[in-house]
Amino acid sequence: MRKICVVITARASYSRIKTVLTAIQAHPRLTLQIVVTGSALVERFGNIIPHLEAQNLPVSAIIPNLLDVENTTASAKTTGLAVIELATFFANRRPDLVVTVADRYETIATAIAAVNMNIPLAHVQGGETTGNIDDRIRNSISQLADLHFVATENARDRLVRMGLSRQKVHCTGCPSIDLVYRHKDFYFNPYESYGGVGTQPDLNAPYLVILQHPVTTETGHSKWQIGNTLHAIAALNMPGIWFWPNADSGTAGTAQGIRAFREQHPDLPFHFFKNMESSHFIQLLKNCAAFVGNSSVGIRECSALGVPAVNIGSRQRGRERGPNVLDCLPNTEAIASAVQHQLAHGHYQQVTLYGRGDAGERIAEQLATVPLILKKHLLPA
Amino acid sequence: MRKICVVITARASYSRIKTVLTAIQAHPRLTLQIVVTGSALVERFGNIIPHLEAQNLPVSAIIPNLLDVENTTASAKTTGLAVIELATFFANRRPDLVVTVADRYETIATAIAAVNMNIPLAHVQGGETTGNIDDRIRNSISQLADLHFVATENARDRLVRMGLSRQKVHCTGCPSIDLVYRHKDFYFNPYESYGGVGTQPDLNAPYLVILQHPVTTETGHSKWQIGNTLHAIAALNMPGIWFWPNADSGTAGTAQGIRAFREQHPDLPFHFFKNMESSHFIQLLKNCAAFVGNSSVGIRECSALGVPAVNIGSRQRGRERGPNVLDCLPNTEAIASAVQHQLAHGHYQQVTLYGRGDAGERIAEQLATVPLILKKHLLPA
Amino acid sequence: MRKICVVITARASYSRIKTVLTAIQAHPRLTLQIVVTGSALVERFGNIIPHLEAQNLPVSAIIPNLLDVENTTASAKTTGLAVIELATFFANRRPDLVVTVADRYETIATAIAAVNMNIPLAHVQGGETTGNIDDRIRNSISQLADLHFVATENARDRLVRMGLSRQKVHCTGCPSIDLVYRHKDFYFNPYESYGGVGTQPDLNAPYLVILQHPVTTETGHSKWQIGNTLHAIAALNMPGIWFWPNADSGTAGTAQGIRAFREQHPDLPFHFFKNMESSHFIQLLKNCAAFVGNSSVGIRECSALGVPAVNIGSRQRGRERGPNVLDCLPNTEAIASAVQHQLAHGHYQQVTLYGRGDAGERIAEQLATVPLILKKHLLPA
Amino acid sequence: MRKICVVITARASYSRIKTVLTAIQAHPRLTLQIVVTGSALVERFGNIIPHLEAQNLPVSAIIPNLLDVENTTASAKTTGLAVIELATFFANRRPDLVVTVADRYETIATAIAAVNMNIPLAHVQGGETTGNIDDRIRNSISQLADLHFVATENARDRLVRMGLSRQKVHCTGCPSIDLVYRHKDFYFNPYESYGGVGTQPDLNAPYLVILQHPVTTETGHSKWQIGNTLHAIAALNMPGIWFWPNADSGTAGTAQGIRAFREQHPDLPFHFFKNMESSHFIQLLKNCAAFVGNSSVGIRECSALGVPAVNIGSRQRGRERGPNVLDCLPNTEAIASAVQHQLAHGHYQQVTLYGRGDAGERIAEQLATVPLILKKHLLPA
Repeated sequence: MRKICVVITARASYSRIKTVLTAIQAHPRLTLQIVVTGSALVERFGNIIPHLEAQNLPVSAIIPNLLDVENTTASAKTTGLAVIELATFFANRRPDLVVTVADRYETIATAIAAVNMNIPLAHVQGGETTGNIDDRIRNSISQLADLHFVATENARDRLVRMGLSRQKVHCTGCPSIDLVYRHKDFYFNPYESYGGVGTQPDLNAPYLVILQHPVTTETGHSKWQIGNTLHAIAALNMPGIWFWPNADSGTAGTAQGIRAFREQHPDLPFHFFKNMESSHFIQLLKNCAAFVGNSSVGIRECSALGVPAVNIGSRQRGRERGPNVLDCLPNTEAIASAVQHQLAHGHYQQVTLYGRGDAGERIAEQLATVPLILKKHLLPA
Repeated sequence: MRKICVVITARASYSRIKTVLTAIQAHPRLTLQIVVTGSALVERFGNIIPHLEAQNLPVSAIIPNLLDVENTTASAKTTGLAVIELATFFANRRPDLVVTVADRYETIATAIAAVNMNIPLAHVQGGETTGNIDDRIRNSISQLADLHFVATENARDRLVRMGLSRQKVHCTGCPSIDLVYRHKDFYFNPYESYGGVGTQPDLNAPYLVILQHPVTTETGHSKWQIGNTLHAIAALNMPGIWFWPNADSGTAGTAQGIRAFREQHPDLPFHFFKNMESSHFIQLLKNCAAFVGNSSVGIRECSALGVPAVNIGSRQRGRERGPNVLDCLPNTEAIASAVQHQLAHGHYQQVTLYGRGDAGERIAEQLATVPLILKKHLLPA
Repeated sequence: MRKICVVITARASYSRIKTVLTAIQAHPRLTLQIVVTGSALVERFGNIIPHLEAQNLPVSAIIPNLLDVENTTASAKTTGLAVIELATFFANRRPDLVVTVADRYETIATAIAAVNMNIPLAHVQGGETTGNIDDRIRNSISQLADLHFVATENARDRLVRMGLSRQKVHCTGCPSIDLVYRHKDFYFNPYESYGGVGTQPDLNAPYLVILQHPVTTETGHSKWQIGNTLHAIAALNMPGIWFWPNADSGTAGTAQGIRAFREQHPDLPFHFFKNMESSHFIQLLKNCAAFVGNSSVGIRECSALGVPAVNIGSRQRGRERGPNVLDCLPNTEAIASAVQHQLAHGHYQQVTLYGRGDAGERIAEQLATVPLILKKHLLPA
Repeated sequence: MRKICVVITARASYSRIKTVLTAIQAHPRLTLQIVVTGSALVERFGNIIPHLEAQNLPVSAIIPNLLDVENTTASAKTTGLAVIELATFFANRRPDLVVTVADRYETIATAIAAVNMNIPLAHVQGGETTGNIDDRIRNSISQLADLHFVATENARDRLVRMGLSRQKVHCTGCPSIDLVYRHKDFYFNPYESYGGVGTQPDLNAPYLVILQHPVTTETGHSKWQIGNTLHAIAALNMPGIWFWPNADSGTAGTAQGIRAFREQHPDLPFHFFKNMESSHFIQLLKNCAAFVGNSSVGIRECSALGVPAVNIGSRQRGRERGPNVLDCLPNTEAIASAVQHQLAHGHYQQVTLYGRGDAGERIAEQLATVPLILKKHLLPA
């Protein structure tokens, strides 16, 4: 039995890797170890422990390490702490292979601990390009990894051009898209299930879903950025389901922006959720009139669903996209105008750009069968 | 005045960056901050503090962080500690640009702290290829860096193929080669100056210089590896000046190998040094009959000096080399035979493959003039 | 010149040590190093950097280390990080003597780093007793310290009974009381100077000052505890100036309690401040009708001012007190009744139990003259 | 079942707590968690993992954290790392009670993590006094602990005088003495079993056992100190079985002293062991003519065995002792003369000062039955 350790550092990463976790657990030749750390343990950023427990997924360890200062020093230190404590976990539990997900700043900690300890490293979602600082982290992790599971053929080509061996790069599609394909229509009341704050738009009428993160290189602008989006949607008087951003440098600004806006405009048809189980989120997304924000959801999940997406600003610059995406500048007028355009257009044709729904199983199968050439480390020393 | 912070983690890195330090200090528009950490603070691996003080180079901070367990867990934790404490240094001293050197496992800590904190990062000696795990660390740092100072045109091309912007990659030559060009012949007695242990070969007669590091991915074999080299040189009964290896996983094995051999063969014409000021080392190297080992010295410095080099095993696999290098397998017979071949050949023609002796100044000039586009971070938050 | 390093980990500690800082800075034979860490760097708990700068007090280093998870694991890790990074600071800046203040959980980090590094340690405010977990931390630090500056003769006797040498324990009075004696009456408008939220009670009419912290051993009850106090004061319909609590396990509960109450009762005559410069705070305190809460302010500062104080619950149990203090259980009725009693009584006679206003100078003078018998450490090794 | 976590940081602590571990494991109402950290994981200081495995004692986690710089900064950082990582262990494995042993610098890390996390803490070997810096650590831990298991009635009285509640202090005797009482005579050849270096004295003739540690506050003198002892024993030409010291600041000096002496005097009847299983060590001790050094072994184990002990210098100053101990200054003449006196006297009467051999069981029984009044922590938060 190969022991596969998946390190999850944020709510968003959990959603992306969920079908891989399930497929590893179901695989007869794999044992699953899950380590939860970073903002994935913090209530206000979306503690994933209850979700893992609800899915009967095993939490091998929690590593609380998120620093409480809204600045870039805190990001660096959170990463450093993760390296230290993941090393201890690996020394004790000796996984045969470690999986790290995507490109958040602290995911490189997983890569560094594994590479230093001669443990083979698999990276999910490498080779993409978003035109911002995440590109650096993503490419840096790709250079450290032994095995790559990418979402698109373009991503695969990009990794090969970077000097990585083609046979180590597997184009499996993105596991987050698996959820889109698997989801069955079902009824649920998000207000009852998740609480949240604000008025409660009627979900049988057209509504928007909005998810906007602070942009890492533009720390300090996040309050202004979210403010523009809030004003744009308010100007349209369109019902909106908003989601709270990830824990990043700049999150406090986004949160302040939302709070200040809500105090001034308590009666707008907006509802704010902190977190949502991904099958529920997709249900909500599938039924919405359009998605707005700078999350990759607009580009990935929405392309598979055919949902019109307004992509604001630079955060997804360079990411491969389907016909459903309309880019706009991060100012109020541009956002409002782009949303109107997308509402006028309505749903788009679904495309399989980011996968066909079987990424989880394909990744698990590779993890079970790929030759592990690195010698196992011997510990304790 | 731009504040340039250079982080030095090992004796070897100091030798490589020395002329850059001097050139930054001499530059009218640059202020130099030096942080010393890792094995560069530990006596038995070559504490560089006295050397910096002797050169009147300013030590802005020491960060002791090397763990004392000879295994890969310790390497990871040392790296994690470095990220945490470098973040604090950067938050307090706010360098405008950070420089990291080469490819040792812990140098990525400097890159991670700087990138997380939006501080522009320069990397010296990227784009090379040695065919081992150092390649990963080196390429990973290249993906994180904003500015690249490479030694050869091949290295530059490799970085550009990896997707980095050509105008950010400067082929300045390697600063370690500056020392070779600048050095004047002078007499010194290494036994008097550095002590060391063992018999004292006559340095006017032919002698070898040997420097062999443990190989990171082959931890556990290091005692056997150094044993083969010791036996090969002993079999030739050739006087040898040996140097102690870097602090790496596997160092203990190398040290044990040397100690065990010395106990059995106390009378061989071998002398062992722990450390040597680089100008002295080059003097010793210039006068030797041949270099033996797996250090990059055989390939870089020796190519500029025309010194015959025997390169053992896989550690430098893939590194660009001049005509002076003869590769061999890491077994006793192969080593002995290669050394005999090189001794028979004698000195080679000098080549400028790794630089022309002005890398330090060229790098300092770039550091002073390159536009810094990333916004400065604001701290404390 | 002796280098004296004072480590400040929280807004409250800064207020307590302020006159010592000023006196060290003014002393001809002392050089002051201030390290700021923990919640003292975090905006929402009261970042003290602007206050230090306003006083021209030198910040030698900031060490961001507060973890962002509201639980006890975070407290422990914050403490561990402080030990690691204070060790680096001490190794670099080599203070001759280190000062730690009072009894918050993370202050023991300063003590551990200093003692491990053979640097003499002075502790301010040892020997008191509050009947809760802070007693352990406080006594534990006393056992590590070389020099003790206590507030009362009782505290001195308690330390001597614990086995400490009487000549190392100096009863100087509490430096926080210095501010009370030095303060001159002056007019200021706290709403203009500090903003805050809520209605703005007329400060020429009677008002209460309320400061209630979560109790460390009762984590989980903090929301309920603050709720009782809020309801009690609301029932009296008495104007209240409230202050936000320290960063501790349990803070989130207190904050939630306040937020929930404000949403329900937006019109009560309550104003909430996050932080206040201590001279302003004392001005506000001096003019209030009574103090309410579980802060030591009610017992210390109020005794010197003669301000009636209602002390709620167990947090100050065992702390020496003057006649101005009335204890009560942490339930709504008891609090309301105790406040009414104190309002009926009015101001009390001032007592010098906790000092005469010269603690800062007396401590600085001792720091300058006490023989330092421990050998100085030699670094870097 | 109560989960009892014992944290072991050094070979010496393992020997002291061994019978407690066995008794916890055998107790029907207790579950044993062992965490191994610090020098207890490092080969050259005596890795205890093989010993634990040989005893079928469960290793719940290893936490490698020992820094490799022979100075006091490293001690502080090792302690800080231990706090951080023990907090993670406690958060994951949720012991009901944590046990820390004696007074080494890093044992306070266990206490700090447990107290911060509201986990009841038991301390073994508090209340003693040795007159050096260990007293501070020991007393500081006593102030943090909830439950105390002391070796002597004097120790109990001292803790009560320090303000601790008498009913929380249990005089169980010292578990290290249990081994003395339980040991049966048996034959073993230590040279065969443990290797070591040096000549091999005949153990049927009179011989000395020597164990001398560096003294923490006298870092820098350790080479000179061990040198004096080596010369004194050499002058007597008495066969000696020497043991390598603990990992402490100053260890390098002791090791250098021993190495330098051995090079000059290879033929003296001295043998040097790095480590020895405690039952073997006691066998060797029981048969020796006298014990020499500054370890507590001379005072504790030797008092129960009646073995004459020469106690050198200040390290055990103030520790309660039986008639078998002769103190001397740390100079060559004083040591030689004291050893001669003890050899002339021969064995002393055995005393039960440090216990009667049932400490392990008595401690386990208390751990199983003591009421745990602190509320259990709830994690993850």
